[in-house]
Amino acid sequence: MAESTTINPKPLVSIVMGSDSDLPVMQPAADFLKSLDVSFELTIVSAHRTPQRLMQYATEARSRGLKCIIAGAGGAAHLPGMIAAVTTLPVIGVPVKSSNSIDGWDSVLSILQMPGGVPVATVALNGAKNAGILAAQILATTDETLAKRLEQYKQQLQQEVATKIQHLQHSGWPNAFDGGL
Amino acid sequence: MAESTTINPKPLVSIVMGSDSDLPVMQPAADFLKSLDVSFELTIVSAHRTPQRLMQYATEARSRGLKCIIAGAGGAAHLPGMIAAVTTLPVIGVPVKSSNSIDGWDSVLSILQMPGGVPVATVALNGAKNAGILAAQILATTDETLAKRLEQYKQQLQQEVATKIQHLQHSGWPNAFDGGL
Amino acid sequence: MAESTTINPKPLVSIVMGSDSDLPVMQPAADFLKSLDVSFELTIVSAHRTPQRLMQYATEARSRGLKCIIAGAGGAAHLPGMIAAVTTLPVIGVPVKSSNSIDGWDSVLSILQMPGGVPVATVALNGAKNAGILAAQILATTDETLAKRLEQYKQQLQQEVATKIQHLQHSGWPNAFDGGL
Amino acid sequence: MAESTTINPKPLVSIVMGSDSDLPVMQPAADFLKSLDVSFELTIVSAHRTPQRLMQYATEARSRGLKCIIAGAGGAAHLPGMIAAVTTLPVIGVPVKSSNSIDGWDSVLSILQMPGGVPVATVALNGAKNAGILAAQILATTDETLAKRLEQYKQQLQQEVATKIQHLQHSGWPNAFDGGL
Amino acid sequence: MAESTTINPKPLVSIVMGSDSDLPVMQPAADFLKSLDVSFELTIVSAHRTPQRLMQYATEARSRGLKCIIAGAGGAAHLPGMIAAVTTLPVIGVPVKSSNSIDGWDSVLSILQMPGGVPVATVALNGAKNAGILAAQILATTDETLAKRLEQYKQQLQQEVATKIQHLQHSGWPNAFDGGL
Amino acid sequence: MAESTTINPKPLVSIVMGSDSDLPVMQPAADFLKSLDVSFELTIVSAHRTPQRLMQYATEARSRGLKCIIAGAGGAAHLPGMIAAVTTLPVIGVPVKSSNSIDGWDSVLSILQMPGGVPVATVALNGAKNAGILAAQILATTDETLAKRLEQYKQQLQQEVATKIQHLQHSGWPNAFDGGL
Amino acid sequence: MAESTTINPKPLVSIVMGSDSDLPVMQPAADFLKSLDVSFELTIVSAHRTPQRLMQYATEARSRGLKCIIAGAGGAAHLPGMIAAVTTLPVIGVPVKSSNSIDGWDSVLSILQMPGGVPVATVALNGAKNAGILAAQILATTDETLAKRLEQYKQQLQQEVATKIQHLQHSGWPNAFDGGL
Amino acid sequence: MAESTTINPKPLVSIVMGSDSDLPVMQPAADFLKSLDVSFELTIVSAHRTPQRLMQYATEARSRGLKCIIAGAGGAAHLPGMIAAVTTLPVIGVPVKSSNSIDGWDSVLSILQMPGGVPVATVALNGAKNAGILAAQILATTDETLAKRLEQYKQQLQQEVATKIQHLQHSGWPNAFDGGL
Repeated sequence: MAESTTINPKPLVSIVMGSDSDLPVMQPAADFLKSLDVSFELTIVSAHRTPQRLMQYATEARSRGLKCIIAGAGGAAHLPGMIAAVTTLPVIGVPVKSSNSIDGWDSVLSILQMPGGVPVATVALNGAKNAGILAAQILATTDETLAKRLEQYKQQLQQEVATKIQHLQHSGWPNAFDGGL
Repeated sequence: MAESTTINPKPLVSIVMGSDSDLPVMQPAADFLKSLDVSFELTIVSAHRTPQRLMQYATEARSRGLKCIIAGAGGAAHLPGMIAAVTTLPVIGVPVKSSNSIDGWDSVLSILQMPGGVPVATVALNGAKNAGILAAQILATTDETLAKRLEQYKQQLQQEVATKIQHLQHSGWPNAFDGGL
Repeated sequence: MAESTTINPKPLVSIVMGSDSDLPVMQPAADFLKSLDVSFELTIVSAHRTPQRLMQYATEARSRGLKCIIAGAGGAAHLPGMIAAVTTLPVIGVPVKSSNSIDGWDSVLSILQMPGGVPVATVALNGAKNAGILAAQILATTDETLAKRLEQYKQQLQQEVATKIQHLQHSGWPNAFDGGL
Repeated sequence: MAESTTINPKPLVSIVMGSDSDLPVMQPAADFLKSLDVSFELTIVSAHRTPQRLMQYATEARSRGLKCIIAGAGGAAHLPGMIAAVTTLPVIGVPVKSSNSIDGWDSVLSILQMPGGVPVATVALNGAKNAGILAAQILATTDETLAKRLEQYKQQLQQEVATKIQHLQHSGWPNAFDGGL
Repeated sequence: MAESTTINPKPLVSIVMGSDSDLPVMQPAADFLKSLDVSFELTIVSAHRTPQRLMQYATEARSRGLKCIIAGAGGAAHLPGMIAAVTTLPVIGVPVKSSNSIDGWDSVLSILQMPGGVPVATVALNGAKNAGILAAQILATTDETLAKRLEQYKQQLQQEVATKIQHLQHSGWPNAFDGGL
Repeated sequence: MAESTTINPKPLVSIVMGSDSDLPVMQPAADFLKSLDVSFELTIVSAHRTPQRLMQYATEARSRGLKCIIAGAGGAAHLPGMIAAVTTLPVIGVPVKSSNSIDGWDSVLSILQMPGGVPVATVALNGAKNAGILAAQILATTDETLAKRLEQYKQQLQQEVATKIQHLQHSGWPNAFDGGL
Repeated sequence: MAESTTINPKPLVSIVMGSDSDLPVMQPAADFLKSLDVSFELTIVSAHRTPQRLMQYATEARSRGLKCIIAGAGGAAHLPGMIAAVTTLPVIGVPVKSSNSIDGWDSVLSILQMPGGVPVATVALNGAKNAGILAAQILATTDETLAKRLEQYKQQLQQEVATKIQHLQHSGWPNAFDGGL
Repeated sequence: MAESTTINPKPLVSIVMGSDSDLPVMQPAADFLKSLDVSFELTIVSAHRTPQRLMQYATEARSRGLKCIIAGAGGAAHLPGMIAAVTTLPVIGVPVKSSNSIDGWDSVLSILQMPGGVPVATVALNGAKNAGILAAQILATTDETLAKRLEQYKQQLQQEVATKIQHLQHSGWPNAFDGGL
């Protein structure tokens, strides 16, 4: 599904997931960053199966030049919170609705309800795209070029609505209001 | 799916939704209003992708002659509540069970739990038909003709049960009680 | 707590509740209507203890001149839905968090999740004030004077925020932004 | 699915449901009663679409010779509770998981959480078979023949487990413990 | 709290609970039965601490002349279901909201969600009074005197509402509607 | 599905389930124990349909040489807790998401929320594999050979991640970080 | 509260908690182990504030002679699962209902819903006493003396019920059934 | 409670809340930023009572030099999401457990479950302190001094655990393990 990508030798954003089975859910984060030309790396770090790797990964993250880590996991999802325990980089958590999940509540609460002192910036269940956007917004706080691309993306979202309204008007709803765009 | 409709140039009810993907869920509101010959408009207003449009739409709604707004949205559903924040027209909220929803709880609670001062009249999850009925009931508080049509609709609901009981009696349940109709 | 009130001999809004123990929760609906000079009546109708009374009340409501019924109930809250089953007036349901409630979920779902054909306009848990506002909004769809009062109430809500911001500025947060009001 | 049945002219148990769409869920109650030769009637009573019929049905139930009423409904399920409001016969409620239900929570809580004074004997979500058994148990409190049939049914449940254990032993689990039966 | 009671030497109803700490919750079942002069016994049977006693109690229940068993328990509440596993008497389950309960959900679901074949008639969380009423209703299916007392109780519930309406009329709500009683 | 197995004449672990319909969910516990050469037996014990068998099974478990019991059940899942009520062996509970379950919450809470004095070691919904591992870990507290096999299994989990990372690197994510393994 | 204790220089069980604020909840585990003369240690290991300490603690646990680890934590409770990620000792998780918890659901699900391969033996919310019992049961699989003490404890639980029944009989419930003990 | 503060004339972080009643919950965000000498402003912006102010505030935020917005709200919490709809700055959402909240679920889901395209970085219920830390982490991605302060804060968290362990050792738990710090 993923074509070969030439990623910046110095990735700014990291996308980690607990298992390769999470890749379809996490891919939109990668896709968004690519679309805005933000360098990133993507790999697997399992809190429960590779805890030492998690420790090393999180410990080295800042010195390796990363600015932000996106971590997705399902069930009793400990990956985002444990990375946040080790690094002071902002960590974005993506609750993944895995099989045998209790409707996603487990991953949402395991990621969201971090204790005082160790935040995880949680996005919606399976909301990897928003994690990618959030990472770009964080970088854009000091990158004007990126900030402009985010503005363009926002306008594009708005434009898509305008297009859909025109489509409505041509398909049985002729007087759909179209102001305010 | 929707055939071209000649809608009253002065719609009394508005049906707005956050995305055209909500149309299959929201269509029953339109269908009901059409069946009772209540003029309405239907369009897309996204709280999150077109906030300025939302503001304009809600601000102009009363002066454009609308009497009631039906707003459907899913997930963190802010559309009904934000319209209600701007207009004093009654706003009917339809929680839509979108993909990646947490079983619909997100849209239900995002629409229902409005703070004191800014009500949204919430109907059941995916309950757009009831939103259409409620809009008609609101108009019918001062429209006798419409009130009669609503009475007829209520009798029709009752008649449908009578028909089903007869069907039961003919298909293996001969002594199904049929009084009280 | 409630002082004697001279209510319009022809009440337009009805406030009913399942028990007098719900009165403290429902009172804000009455207070709001009074503040906007909307005539109303308030009484007890228990779906489970006085079902015949419920039937009579709901059957006569429209012919008695009522325009809208606010019904509050807790637990397995059947009052709003059963009234809506009988009358075609708009019914506003107020889920009441009673003792032994399962965190209010029972009353919320018992009122909200009405089947297609019989809507109840549900407001937030214990949200009686919003029920009062919604009733006024319904009447105001054809009552310009009342519509203006609702606009004034909306401005008053906004003004209260402005006052609170000034208070913030004087109590340790001198540069609290105050634009946009 | 249901073949024509010669039901006792004087049914002892009533099975009512809000809609014929609930029939597949409710059928096991009828099947169980038939298997134990308990006379019953089955019909449709909708709390929300035929409230007068509900009132009549519940009012006449005892004088018509019924001993127990099984009522199934989904969503904001008011049928069992409203029947219980009118009659003093024991009412057994079956929460039905309807489409657009919020995972069945709505019907469970709408039926279970009745206020003090008006009980509904609630069984599991979609648990119509158990409703049939419970009705038979109620009749069997004073019917020795029926009580014996219930004992036989209980032994049959036990025997089915014994058979399954033998099946296990013959299909890859040769030393499955088989004592205590 | 409980005064000495002369209970019928042949109790018809049994009230069992998992611990004496459940007594305040279960007492209303006893009180109701006493008020209708229904003989009962009350004791402690813990599924988890006295499983043999549970087995003996449930096994002997019918032969000891009991007609119905009310069982209350909290948390992972196995008492009602395990009694129902042994006896064919109707078992009424009362979910008790114990300390460390997860909001009562644990006891509600542990009692309600019985598998096909073994019903428990579940009442509301902490709804022991309704368990008492239900037990009386079961006995009243063949006891005319008791059935009349239950009718009187129902009328009394209705009368209490009438009294409360009069109270409302005298305390600030002079035109509270009082029809239908 | 299960091929004939030569199980140790003296099983150390027991796997019991409420019904053979739970076998697909419970099989991974058996598979894991087999892979580590831990002797076990597997059978059906239904708390609700064979309570006497449950009592006998749990009473004899320790004297028959069992060291640990894995019990899986769905809905109002009383099997693990009732076994734990009788034996002092460690009991591992597997909540099974059965049909008509309320999203698995019923079995999770029925097994997890045991009262003080009678523990059940609960694993994740449908988490039978982990139940098998846990049983092995319990035996391994005094079995060095088994402890080593568990260490090897842990390394194997880690190795699987390493393999997946290499796979990622060859399929479009060339610079996936691979340290810390 | 805790008096000075002479603990076995070679503790067999470890009790760890995320914060000293969890001590009141976790103390019953220590108390139970003490009452059965099981050596243990108790300390603080925070997954989020001291991740390196967690790694060291879990890595050395087996070689330090520990047989079992009890870990209690609240909110997004990662401590039990992360210890289980590192060691192959059985890990018992105690969900703690901390302040700002969402009714305890967060800690329950964060501990219970571990992925396949890494089990945590979860006990009830705030169920530290049961964690202590479970730890003793694990040790007792190969310690006859301890197994006997657990049997005595079980009999003591049963005896407490007998005492409570006698108390009932002396306080207003003279004919409380007392068989089966 | 809040003493007068000299805030940087050019605040980098904004803390907004829907009502001054949220101030006690939101104050820890301000306190943390102050402790790290990060300039911020704090004010009231109500999505529902001051929607125009919200629009203006969010529209001007970036040009006024803000880098990040922390928004706290309760119930149907639309403030964080609506700000995120307008600005491309990172928005951190703090779900506030308000009175009449349904256990906080409403604010959590209203903030977390944002649709694709418009992220809100959500922290735990009432987790304002973590919102402050996250804001600092975002600024620290390009501010080395601030990054060092965050490292120091992390070490301080760890040191607090060490102190608590010493305290344990002196108060009845003499052999509490103290390695790994």
